[in-house]
Amino acid sequence: MYGELAIFSGSANPELAQEICDYLKVSLAQATIIDFSNENIFVKLQRSVRGQDVFIIQPMTSPVNRNIMELLIMIDTMKRASAGRITAVTPYFAYARSDKKDQPRVPITARLVADMITIAGADRYMTIDLHAGQIQGFFNIPGDELTAFHILSDYFVREQIPQATIVSVDLGFAKKARNFAEKLHLPMAFIEKRRVVGGGVEDLGIIGNVEGRNCILVDDEVDTAASMVEAVILIKDKGARDIYVSFTHPIFSGTAVERLKDLPIKKIVTTNTAYLLPEKRLPNMTVLSVAPLLGEVIRRTHQGISVGEWLEDV
Amino acid sequence: MYGELAIFSGSANPELAQEICDYLKVSLAQATIIDFSNENIFVKLQRSVRGQDVFIIQPMTSPVNRNIMELLIMIDTMKRASAGRITAVTPYFAYARSDKKDQPRVPITARLVADMITIAGADRYMTIDLHAGQIQGFFNIPGDELTAFHILSDYFVREQIPQATIVSVDLGFAKKARNFAEKLHLPMAFIEKRRVVGGGVEDLGIIGNVEGRNCILVDDEVDTAASMVEAVILIKDKGARDIYVSFTHPIFSGTAVERLKDLPIKKIVTTNTAYLLPEKRLPNMTVLSVAPLLGEVIRRTHQGISVGEWLEDV
Amino acid sequence: MYGELAIFSGSANPELAQEICDYLKVSLAQATIIDFSNENIFVKLQRSVRGQDVFIIQPMTSPVNRNIMELLIMIDTMKRASAGRITAVTPYFAYARSDKKDQPRVPITARLVADMITIAGADRYMTIDLHAGQIQGFFNIPGDELTAFHILSDYFVREQIPQATIVSVDLGFAKKARNFAEKLHLPMAFIEKRRVVGGGVEDLGIIGNVEGRNCILVDDEVDTAASMVEAVILIKDKGARDIYVSFTHPIFSGTAVERLKDLPIKKIVTTNTAYLLPEKRLPNMTVLSVAPLLGEVIRRTHQGISVGEWLEDV
Amino acid sequence: MYGELAIFSGSANPELAQEICDYLKVSLAQATIIDFSNENIFVKLQRSVRGQDVFIIQPMTSPVNRNIMELLIMIDTMKRASAGRITAVTPYFAYARSDKKDQPRVPITARLVADMITIAGADRYMTIDLHAGQIQGFFNIPGDELTAFHILSDYFVREQIPQATIVSVDLGFAKKARNFAEKLHLPMAFIEKRRVVGGGVEDLGIIGNVEGRNCILVDDEVDTAASMVEAVILIKDKGARDIYVSFTHPIFSGTAVERLKDLPIKKIVTTNTAYLLPEKRLPNMTVLSVAPLLGEVIRRTHQGISVGEWLEDV
Amino acid sequence: MYGELAIFSGSANPELAQEICDYLKVSLAQATIIDFSNENIFVKLQRSVRGQDVFIIQPMTSPVNRNIMELLIMIDTMKRASAGRITAVTPYFAYARSDKKDQPRVPITARLVADMITIAGADRYMTIDLHAGQIQGFFNIPGDELTAFHILSDYFVREQIPQATIVSVDLGFAKKARNFAEKLHLPMAFIEKRRVVGGGVEDLGIIGNVEGRNCILVDDEVDTAASMVEAVILIKDKGARDIYVSFTHPIFSGTAVERLKDLPIKKIVTTNTAYLLPEKRLPNMTVLSVAPLLGEVIRRTHQGISVGEWLEDV
Amino acid sequence: MYGELAIFSGSANPELAQEICDYLKVSLAQATIIDFSNENIFVKLQRSVRGQDVFIIQPMTSPVNRNIMELLIMIDTMKRASAGRITAVTPYFAYARSDKKDQPRVPITARLVADMITIAGADRYMTIDLHAGQIQGFFNIPGDELTAFHILSDYFVREQIPQATIVSVDLGFAKKARNFAEKLHLPMAFIEKRRVVGGGVEDLGIIGNVEGRNCILVDDEVDTAASMVEAVILIKDKGARDIYVSFTHPIFSGTAVERLKDLPIKKIVTTNTAYLLPEKRLPNMTVLSVAPLLGEVIRRTHQGISVGEWLEDV
Repeated sequence: MYGELAIFSGSANPELAQEICDYLKVSLAQATIIDFSNENIFVKLQRSVRGQDVFIIQPMTSPVNRNIMELLIMIDTMKRASAGRITAVTPYFAYARSDKKDQPRVPITARLVADMITIAGADRYMTIDLHAGQIQGFFNIPGDELTAFHILSDYFVREQIPQATIVSVDLGFAKKARNFAEKLHLPMAFIEKRRVVGGGVEDLGIIGNVEGRNCILVDDEVDTAASMVEAVILIKDKGARDIYVSFTHPIFSGTAVERLKDLPIKKIVTTNTAYLLPEKRLPNMTVLSVAPLLGEVIRRTHQGISVGEWLEDV
Repeated sequence: MYGELAIFSGSANPELAQEICDYLKVSLAQATIIDFSNENIFVKLQRSVRGQDVFIIQPMTSPVNRNIMELLIMIDTMKRASAGRITAVTPYFAYARSDKKDQPRVPITARLVADMITIAGADRYMTIDLHAGQIQGFFNIPGDELTAFHILSDYFVREQIPQATIVSVDLGFAKKARNFAEKLHLPMAFIEKRRVVGGGVEDLGIIGNVEGRNCILVDDEVDTAASMVEAVILIKDKGARDIYVSFTHPIFSGTAVERLKDLPIKKIVTTNTAYLLPEKRLPNMTVLSVAPLLGEVIRRTHQGISVGEWLEDV
Repeated sequence: MYGELAIFSGSANPELAQEICDYLKVSLAQATIIDFSNENIFVKLQRSVRGQDVFIIQPMTSPVNRNIMELLIMIDTMKRASAGRITAVTPYFAYARSDKKDQPRVPITARLVADMITIAGADRYMTIDLHAGQIQGFFNIPGDELTAFHILSDYFVREQIPQATIVSVDLGFAKKARNFAEKLHLPMAFIEKRRVVGGGVEDLGIIGNVEGRNCILVDDEVDTAASMVEAVILIKDKGARDIYVSFTHPIFSGTAVERLKDLPIKKIVTTNTAYLLPEKRLPNMTVLSVAPLLGEVIRRTHQGISVGEWLEDV
Repeated sequence: MYGELAIFSGSANPELAQEICDYLKVSLAQATIIDFSNENIFVKLQRSVRGQDVFIIQPMTSPVNRNIMELLIMIDTMKRASAGRITAVTPYFAYARSDKKDQPRVPITARLVADMITIAGADRYMTIDLHAGQIQGFFNIPGDELTAFHILSDYFVREQIPQATIVSVDLGFAKKARNFAEKLHLPMAFIEKRRVVGGGVEDLGIIGNVEGRNCILVDDEVDTAASMVEAVILIKDKGARDIYVSFTHPIFSGTAVERLKDLPIKKIVTTNTAYLLPEKRLPNMTVLSVAPLLGEVIRRTHQGISVGEWLEDV
Repeated sequence: MYGELAIFSGSANPELAQEICDYLKVSLAQATIIDFSNENIFVKLQRSVRGQDVFIIQPMTSPVNRNIMELLIMIDTMKRASAGRITAVTPYFAYARSDKKDQPRVPITARLVADMITIAGADRYMTIDLHAGQIQGFFNIPGDELTAFHILSDYFVREQIPQATIVSVDLGFAKKARNFAEKLHLPMAFIEKRRVVGGGVEDLGIIGNVEGRNCILVDDEVDTAASMVEAVILIKDKGARDIYVSFTHPIFSGTAVERLKDLPIKKIVTTNTAYLLPEKRLPNMTVLSVAPLLGEVIRRTHQGISVGEWLEDV
Repeated sequence: MYGELAIFSGSANPELAQEICDYLKVSLAQATIIDFSNENIFVKLQRSVRGQDVFIIQPMTSPVNRNIMELLIMIDTMKRASAGRITAVTPYFAYARSDKKDQPRVPITARLVADMITIAGADRYMTIDLHAGQIQGFFNIPGDELTAFHILSDYFVREQIPQATIVSVDLGFAKKARNFAEKLHLPMAFIEKRRVVGGGVEDLGIIGNVEGRNCILVDDEVDTAASMVEAVILIKDKGARDIYVSFTHPIFSGTAVERLKDLPIKKIVTTNTAYLLPEKRLPNMTVLSVAPLLGEVIRRTHQGISVGEWLEDV
């Protein structure tokens, strides 16, 4: 229906793009991407995309602003090269916490990024575990928000950890944490942060019981790891036994990895939506691949067959 | 900067519109609104709005779809009558729970409604306590999402209820419930719902402690009151003492009021974002007005002076 | 060229949708449509529409505003479910009399509705006998305005009524009435309404001759039937013999059917663009189906073959 | 509210623009307009329009396509010169008969022209007596369709023609002809054209009575004058006495004036929406000026005071 | 991928359209195009284009504004007739010198024209040798700017003119002139124009050497031929031997041909992007056809195969 | 006409923003700008901009992609904070060399950037010496491209260098170099680059005479300085005497400054459109300020008085 399938990769995670191509048994399409000395990014496709069904794999990871710009330039290039359909595949969507005005005179950058992707010429978007599902509605082009929930929760189904409790690290993640607990038939607890009067510091508390429990801390991403570190220390202090940590996006900015390294965490379970430098892979880390998920959805999107039915079966 | 101020009211809550006018010491501008026998809504303004700064007060309450259509037609009328600036003031924003695709092949109706308001010709929007703050980002026109949080929480500050606990009725409201708890220096508990395997029924649990506590149940709106009724019964069963209920939007669809009437609730505290028929006002209900809030923000918007600074002072 | 054909029906006229499917020998595609207690409409498609050629059958009939909203939500659902092409089929287009500003400070709601259909995501529209053909130009997406003129006029060709005269009930329908007269080789007369000086009442006159003639009163729709009732009484008074009434859209709001029942009309000839409740079907009514017309045009649109040539042959 | 008033004229009717300026007691703003040897039109404004309230007077008269292009280029120039507000004043709107698809595979050029005016950067439009009022709805920017109806009908109120009948030359003008008849308290008749079977020729008839009557033939414009000539001959033949002709737009293309010259018409009453070359002004022609109408509406638009109220008073 | 190929021609250069069809071995699709007496252009397609891949051949040559309007009306017609894809093929793009504001208060008409083509409904554009390549960026739809550079330069490769020098007639063409020089391995010279202080006249100079050289004067188009005439006289005066002139677009407005006729030019080499009236073809003129270039690119665009690779091979 | 004037600065050149404020005698408006550890940029305005006339000063200099993103986020913030009018002031516009497709399958990034600025919510743009003036046409919002030509050329008018020649470093700058030569009444020469057959290297030549001349090399920007270095070496080799270099934008990426330091250049004359680190300021460099130019144009834009007239007087 749309011409030939063509998978391109930006600079953010070519390893993931290659894995997707392996799943799909196609070659990764080649583009020359140059950062000139003046930092202007230049793109030239190495093959025709005329009428083709193009997917650009580009999580919005570090260097974030450069990689967003690269994605937009690639989309513009595809559009002007007369691609048949362009899908922006951003397994990690940056600026997702800037999704509402919760104080006066701040931006809603996630909407801005959605508009930029659209104005550049994307026909569709594909992404994984948005910080807020409502970001889907920032787009008016069709798209698929996928979830690594099954990939992560299946891991714990297999592990069969006894006396376990799901702990939501952030109150904004409470509903999704409940889904974990429901699937694994486990009780829940919440970490609650409060601003202390008269200062910027925050006070941490736990709602629910963690004493003597093996705890699985869940969240959507780990960035600076500040919240995660505090949570681990707190629940350990409250008598938790083994601690597991599970999240989709290993952003690990700043000293995140150093901080995690020193904590009593039995296992860190995450995915490869963001590329993880070898030096950031800790011994207790298990990185599950989202490539089969993205690959299968790309295949179905390309062939015009149902994604929803397959997802419901997973 | 924009011509004269003009406040119009749709059919949904003329009482609130009048209160706002009273606050602003202006007359409510008149429009003829007719529902023809064929249900087509006809609008004719009774005065010129050429170059004026128009605010249309219309919560999206019952009859919901008719009232949305009326709002859109009023906006189109203002636009074609050459209004200088048009602000759609929807103290209650319907379809807000349809804000993301959380399953395949469903709409994001809240975005659709935002687009309809924009395409009809609104220059700005104003609303109160959206179900999800991200709906702000569904608009690309500027706007103000206000909150009745201060109006509601101040009530409990004044009431000084001893041994109280804030109970979040829905996990999606957890973060905002924390703000209540923080402001009132109270502990929290959560109601947690789970799907029971093999059936549509849900299982309710409490995380945190309510035994022997006076409980303030908080949420953004009460619609059918089903969740609220279950929550009240559950916490009563778990040993709660006095029960208070607080929420911004009294939607009260179906038999909501009948259900609430029979419950052991000491006080129901809500606002007038939605018009409440006299027969739906229970003796234990306190309805706080959002008119001064809306009126002041309209005044500041019209005069081009800071809203943010005032809100931060409130 | 566009994937598989998929016909969906909104709530307005599922009977017509089924007839169209019968003509096309396809099954009606299923969607779950729920009106929640809070009147919010929820749509979930029961099958994938990824890449498919979707037609949504929804005349904008009672409840009008709800049905328009349902149509828009269905379009949004199809768009976000990645339909290949979406055609909004509205055999009856409401708000069509609000098609120009003929007095100051009124809306042009028909344009608003066209914009809403477009912004929701429709790629095409299809409709029958617009009140004004210019409403086509309110759309910038392609579409087909079909006409039931042949279906209705062929009826009278078969009936062979002697000494007949075509009577245009409304001066705005004069040109289309002429087409009836031309096809049937009959003379014409016009009903002319004038505002009486100093009051809202109107004065009715006839231009042309009806005395001793069998009269066929023609119009595009009958809504409250007020004009039609006056016209029938007037021409009967002026010596008309048998009276026939012909129009495309049987809207019949309010007491229209009661009014028509008592009149000396030999035959009311109309179509099923609007669903007619059994209790509104009078014994002297003949309802001709537009399903073969819509079905054939849908088939041709889907297959990418000429509609115009076929219409010119009809 | 919008900066200083600035009236510019395109090449189509500078005389009318000057009359409007005289009414408004302002100088006509100067622009250099050059048609290069390669027919490209070049515009350069002779003064700043930064922040000003600009009105461009340009009926879409001969050379039609050049004059439309000139209007668009002037709008673009104003926009890029940072005008505060731009109103396209087109007392005559060309291509207005191309307002619907009444046969397959034809354009709706009037919508195209409306879109072109909008995309060029106009904020508002102003026009007189559109062929179809619905063309208002082709615009989504606000605007004013004015009418010369009062100017023309007042002429006949003053003339006091006895035993007169209003004759509508075209069935599409029937409703507006009724307004003439109503205002002047006169009876009506219609000219009816039919296609003769098996040929392109048309057969003319009259519905209503003209014998022994002084007839006022009304229409919106006279272009080739073909219909008008046929109508005059027919009603003369049917026994009409004095014949008057009244219409807003004297387009007079081809040999229109020659044809009209030889007819037994007592008075041709029209306006100056289109510039009339001196050699086209017949002795029996009365040209009434629309400049006071346009001037007053421009004044009110500029000052942000009601146009509607003034029009209703006229 | 897009239905059947359909080539239509506007009125500007049907001969070129026919040549393209001959190259493609398809029939030119027929449309009725009428200029009514009132100069309104009417278009009616003689065949269905439903779902087809339509190319409209229309250089923007004299009568320029009429031909632009015709192109737009044709696009609108195709869009509303449900064409699958519409490509506006304008081998000559008018108003291209109005591509920036190089003085205050002038338009950027080339952008306006690009917007008009887009708003009318074109999906793609195709053109040859834009006055400035940046005009590509005035479009946001994909397109192909082709060049006749190879066609023209290959002519001189074959001619093998000894002791030749490339002379750029305009400094704005310097870079493209260098490409000629590079391909033909020839030295360059430039004509330099300066404004003389205190007057509109310009002073001409040569930079580089032409004495005793055979000179090939290059530019993108010849319009009034004023610059070309001056250049020829100047270089002849400076001792040039044989003079050749080469340019893509033979616009030849006003007395261009008369002026060129009297000059000592050995050969004028140009193309048929603009239709050349027989009386404008001078004996020393060689007109090379762009039809194979356009035909091949249309073929590849239609079939969705690479244009870029073929162009790089040429 | 637009509320109070507010000047904000992005991170790219706060020194220039302060100079502009000094010229305008206003305080620089404050915003908190934070680069989070995950590289997401956060903006919060320190004051209300409701209804104000906001100018954001942000040349698109290093780090280029971050600074573009910051500009866009600031615009979004202003829009959502209800600014009255937003002007994006980018004294240097990056990606300007990506302004056309001069080979297959490359982007037109400059258009993309213009679209991003527009979609983010800017009402106007202001910039200095675009690489190609046509980039103005990439915007459809109004704007002002200013030039530092007068600032730079006036310097040389004052210097009175004898026996001087203007040398254009790039053929694409030939026309602007001519303007220098014209203003200073000097002869010109051109540097011409050619690709050497069979390799990526380029061959440099001079057209015109530089022997024994003092040479002023002109260009729009110096980036890597590669072309400038080659040009200086070449003309020195060809016998030039003193060498001056003049250009608007000192981008100086990579080792540009090191390269320039070692060359026999008497004076490098540039501006502060891009911020120059102290360590990049060479002893032979003269940096002229564009602040008075920008300041005056901002003042006039804000007050709605003519910019063009003032520029023509400069």
